[in-house]
Amino acid sequence: MTASKLSGVLAPVLTAFTARAELDADRSVTHCQWLLQNGCDGLVVFGTTSEANSCSVFERYDFLEKLVSAGVQPERLMPGTGCCSLKDTIELTRQAVQLGCAGVLVLPPFYYKQVSVDGLFRYFSHVIEAVNDERLRLFLYHIPPISMVPIPLDLVERLRDRFEGIVAGVKDSSGDWAGMQTFLQFAEKGFDVFSGSEEYLLPLLQAGGAGTISAAANVIPGTLQALYQDWKPAGADQQQTAIKKISTVLRSKPLIPSLKAILAKARRDASWKDCRPPLIALSLKEEEDLFAALDNAQFEWPEFG
Amino acid sequence: MTASKLSGVLAPVLTAFTARAELDADRSVTHCQWLLQNGCDGLVVFGTTSEANSCSVFERYDFLEKLVSAGVQPERLMPGTGCCSLKDTIELTRQAVQLGCAGVLVLPPFYYKQVSVDGLFRYFSHVIEAVNDERLRLFLYHIPPISMVPIPLDLVERLRDRFEGIVAGVKDSSGDWAGMQTFLQFAEKGFDVFSGSEEYLLPLLQAGGAGTISAAANVIPGTLQALYQDWKPAGADQQQTAIKKISTVLRSKPLIPSLKAILAKARRDASWKDCRPPLIALSLKEEEDLFAALDNAQFEWPEFG
Repeated sequence: MTASKLSGVLAPVLTAFTARAELDADRSVTHCQWLLQNGCDGLVVFGTTSEANSCSVFERYDFLEKLVSAGVQPERLMPGTGCCSLKDTIELTRQAVQLGCAGVLVLPPFYYKQVSVDGLFRYFSHVIEAVNDERLRLFLYHIPPISMVPIPLDLVERLRDRFEGIVAGVKDSSGDWAGMQTFLQFAEKGFDVFSGSEEYLLPLLQAGGAGTISAAANVIPGTLQALYQDWKPAGADQQQTAIKKISTVLRSKPLIPSLKAILAKARRDASWKDCRPPLIALSLKEEEDLFAALDNAQFEWPEFG
Repeated sequence: MTASKLSGVLAPVLTAFTARAELDADRSVTHCQWLLQNGCDGLVVFGTTSEANSCSVFERYDFLEKLVSAGVQPERLMPGTGCCSLKDTIELTRQAVQLGCAGVLVLPPFYYKQVSVDGLFRYFSHVIEAVNDERLRLFLYHIPPISMVPIPLDLVERLRDRFEGIVAGVKDSSGDWAGMQTFLQFAEKGFDVFSGSEEYLLPLLQAGGAGTISAAANVIPGTLQALYQDWKPAGADQQQTAIKKISTVLRSKPLIPSLKAILAKARRDASWKDCRPPLIALSLKEEEDLFAALDNAQFEWPEFG
């Protein structure tokens, strides 16, 4: 059973910036449209890969409006709305629900570390009660290597008991397969588990998960979609192995600048390399190494019309 | 030599919230005024102890306006203005400068971990260039246990070379005395080093530091000011030892809820216990233990007229 309409391959979409670190909405919208036309089932705008937490609430609010105005169906969108600040999280979540988005992906508040499960429960409860909309589908974002604040299993249990149907799933970017499996105990009850890395797509689907929200989907959406379509036959293992090779190369250098370097080359648009500080573009040497390693891993370069 | 007008005992001021987690500006202003009248040389509004990153940019903007309108001199203020988002940091920093604040305390962008010194340099450079005001005095906020993103020494060197006079000091909340001393190499050149804990006030002053920005200053401003006034005589060691005892008790439980419990009791205003999620108030048992331990440590309860 699936809690939301979204499953399969979702991309946490790269955000385009100018050389002066301004958000470039037009180029970002174009990338979103390309992803949906080339294998993505849905889009997580404002994920970690989107440099979302380097953007202001206003920039995020404004871009989501523009994306929907540009004709991207909100049913395909699961914006990231989790901020450190309770108020900001409420505001962005409310907007997403009102626009008709399929769901929202919500980080735990990530400034204070080693906070209690009680404190996290109150935080998420407060967000859900403030938004106060039956249409809300909230996905918990478990990414301890970056947030440093995990989503504990007992938090999931308490939130699902209290807000059944609203607390709809989890994105697990822990990189810990054993932990990911523990979230799957809720899958039968309509709780969608997405892997945060393409590397776990096949085993997660085999175990009852919903799909992947994968940074690599920014550059290999078709490859991931092919695996998602065909994961039951025997050939799927080989597809997953090929994806893992590419995944390993992508993660051998800073991931977001690497993905942007690939887009810049494939689109012949060097401005795609620009990140917002504190992230910075790869050096030319790093780019060369990355591209050579990708070729060795039989990476199929994305094509743009 | 001191880079800013502020030195001595600064409090990262507690922020009052209502039971519904709304920022209570009136009670927060009253606390700020009490601190300035009872031993604080200056106030860091929007520090870690202030739960600032649990507040929205608008709430922070609005509260600083109110504080200055209420008659608190901006020359006594060093607001925290560091957010994950470049834009937010610029906006809050610009406001503080325009209001005439003595300085700003700026966290590194803290969502992405293991970012490069180059990336951090570009971030801070971008903030300083965007604010573009000679009056700016920027203090770097080194608090790796919470931000998980440190302020490396070579970042300080590069920023000081590029923005002499503007990059004015550091607050070191690492708890690492050896590291704190390395920042002192810049003290002669007009770079103010503040310890993030009252526990290092005396050794830091002896080594050429500027003072402390201490959570405990919320409840023992007079005790800390007494040490600051008298740190040269032989008796100072005993004062520092007494402060360390209290400090140890305060940090034996979650620090911010502990400080709020003390204020609530001393002010006979239970609403001071309220925190904004993810932080939560101490349990009654924790409170009892805390108060008993404080009495054992010869804690002098703050008095309110």
